[in-house]
Amino acid sequence: MRLLGLDPGLQHTGWGVIEADGSRLSFVAAGTVNSDSKRPLAERLVQIHDGLRTVIDQWEPVEAAVEETFVNKNPTSTLKLGLARGVVLLTPALFNLKVAEYPANLIKKSVVGAGHAAKEQVQMMVRVLLPASGDADSADAADALAVAICHAHHRATLKTWGAKDFREVLR
Amino acid sequence: MRLLGLDPGLQHTGWGVIEADGSRLSFVAAGTVNSDSKRPLAERLVQIHDGLRTVIDQWEPVEAAVEETFVNKNPTSTLKLGLARGVVLLTPALFNLKVAEYPANLIKKSVVGAGHAAKEQVQMMVRVLLPASGDADSADAADALAVAICHAHHRATLKTWGAKDFREVLR
Repeated sequence: MRLLGLDPGLQHTGWGVIEADGSRLSFVAAGTVNSDSKRPLAERLVQIHDGLRTVIDQWEPVEAAVEETFVNKNPTSTLKLGLARGVVLLTPALFNLKVAEYPANLIKKSVVGAGHAAKEQVQMMVRVLLPASGDADSADAADALAVAICHAHHRATLKTWGAKDFREVLR
Repeated sequence: MRLLGLDPGLQHTGWGVIEADGSRLSFVAAGTVNSDSKRPLAERLVQIHDGLRTVIDQWEPVEAAVEETFVNKNPTSTLKLGLARGVVLLTPALFNLKVAEYPANLIKKSVVGAGHAAKEQVQMMVRVLLPASGDADSADAADALAVAICHAHHRATLKTWGAKDFREVLR
């Protein structure tokens, strides 16, 4: 079962695909979808959407997971993150993937064993748990892999996502 | 030329379509797309996307306009608005509509003649400018019509949107 982890950002959205075979996890692919800050906002959101669409087409994950957003102290940053996050939650749902959300602490705990681990510890443990991910191209991609790992651990017991199958609106 | 005005909200997104024939404006249709607050977030965003898709299919506007978001004092509200706004900016762009953004003050000025008009004044003037809109079903729909009116006044001189044609990814 292929799982897609996502780390939303207007400028850089990290993504990571892993294969979960029971409790065995393996790295499939990871990367970053970037938007061009010189382009109008709607166009940047299309760039994010199109990038994720390509990832989903190519790697065919069946479920997706996104970190629950913490609210930033800077309201403008919060709004920008919200814009990107809207597209990042919508896009996999449009492709009929279920989309789960996890609090940051649970993601850290799943990967490092502690809910208050530093970002660097999370990224190091991602490399330990998914050795082949050494070529994940960025910290955003590593964070996305951490979300995917968390989802692999918790998906069986997850109750919070929608049971409804989204009809396929794009194919 | 049909123009679509949009007033984003996670719970209620207002929309209004007007016909602009030179400086003559007429009402075409308006309404609200609602999302079900009991459903998971990704699904609610799909509801907004699907609702706007239906509006675009049915009324065939060629350009869209959205109010630039003011940052709310409540960060959680700002984030929710951001999520909805991401989908509201993305969806018309995916359907190959250009998407313009206008500051709230310019919208008020276009409709009422003053940048600091009260919400009720804007809604009253929308009814004066578009008499047939009396059946616009909500304040959100009236606000969306105000954005469409503003866009009709300013679209010719607008420089801020993307010149690039979005390729049609949905049809």
